[in-house]
Amino acid sequence: MTEARRPAKKAPMRDVLAEAAFELFLERGYEQTTVDDIVARAGVGRRSFFRYFPSKEDAVFPDHERCLVEMTAFLEAANGADPVETVCDATRIVLRMYAANPEFSVQRYRLTREVPGLRTYELSVMRRYERTFAGYLERRGERALRAEVIAASVVAAHNNGLRSWLRSGGEGDADAAVDEALGLVRETWGSGGGRPAVAAGDGEVVVVLARKGAPMWRVVQQIESALGDG
Amino acid sequence: MTEARRPAKKAPMRDVLAEAAFELFLERGYEQTTVDDIVARAGVGRRSFFRYFPSKEDAVFPDHERCLVEMTAFLEAANGADPVETVCDATRIVLRMYAANPEFSVQRYRLTREVPGLRTYELSVMRRYERTFAGYLERRGERALRAEVIAASVVAAHNNGLRSWLRSGGEGDADAAVDEALGLVRETWGSGGGRPAVAAGDGEVVVVLARKGAPMWRVVQQIESALGDG
Repeated sequence: MTEARRPAKKAPMRDVLAEAAFELFLERGYEQTTVDDIVARAGVGRRSFFRYFPSKEDAVFPDHERCLVEMTAFLEAANGADPVETVCDATRIVLRMYAANPEFSVQRYRLTREVPGLRTYELSVMRRYERTFAGYLERRGERALRAEVIAASVVAAHNNGLRSWLRSGGEGDADAAVDEALGLVRETWGSGGGRPAVAAGDGEVVVVLARKGAPMWRVVQQIESALGDG
Repeated sequence: MTEARRPAKKAPMRDVLAEAAFELFLERGYEQTTVDDIVARAGVGRRSFFRYFPSKEDAVFPDHERCLVEMTAFLEAANGADPVETVCDATRIVLRMYAANPEFSVQRYRLTREVPGLRTYELSVMRRYERTFAGYLERRGERALRAEVIAASVVAAHNNGLRSWLRSGGEGDADAAVDEALGLVRETWGSGGGRPAVAAGDGEVVVVLARKGAPMWRVVQQIESALGDG
């Protein structure tokens, strides 16, 4: 909403403020830097700061609001066969933001570890992504419990991959790190691709034939319908 | 640590402060209540408040620190066969705290929905439970990714069940609500109980025989070893 109403030409001022803020946080420490310090460095008035950022914390994470808007639009437009796959794909919007500026992302990661207020801010943002995912999964027919548990799994796996990349100093392929972590979510909750043969008789017993090495989720999906409710 | 050092006879003062704080939050609103108001109502000096609570938020959730200590001790002593089952059991320590005083828990739930500062406080606490679970699962041999995803699943499922109970006004059986929600975690991540027959030959194909209606996790566990890495 805010994004859409703001004239495009004002965007650079926002960047100038975020950069000034971050420079000062690294130089003097986060707690020791006031909004007055930031606007003095950026060469603007105090009200300019609050026109762009509701709080000092928001200046440390200037792109999450935009990511949330973009993600919501992505999910609204998505019509892929597998909702879990779509949610995993949507995490790339966040990852792209981190990977666009590895040095900044790594410095911010270190700063966030040290400042409790930034950690809780980050938790709130993560929670908003999680709720966005859960809402989408519910709209795609998952019941609330399953939607919430899958959404929490996606965020946890994404953060595991992202953290590995940040801890490595932003070296290497962020996408590969996160994709590998999301593999666990896809295997566990995704609806899968290839199809092992399942023959369910009318009686008590179900016979399953699967290739050795077949991904577990493919097998599970097939067996589930044959077994009835597990 | 704080718990252990505090003489037992001082515990009531802590309760008196928490009760005075909560009364005032309901009467005047959370933001409008100062620490001075709370100590005036409790009839003690300002320093007494900070002896027991680092911040106003902590007075709203006076029992989470104790729960975290208790949970850590429970997990350290646990030696059950299934670490996922143990973690699910550990959530009962939190639930017991909520269920001990349904009226207070429901009022606090409503207050927390309205006050952003309390929501972020609650997220921080949830994160500490999640990390406690993940740490335990890692010590029990899970790799970090899987430990973190399972821990996030447990917290999400627990919160789903707890929230249903709180939204119902604290009526009914909190244990049943949470147990039902944790069923999804147990089925998905637990190591299971009963054993369907799995015959794995040397060749390409695995044959699985399972009773119709058998719990999915029992079947999966057996197939997994037969299939090799999925």
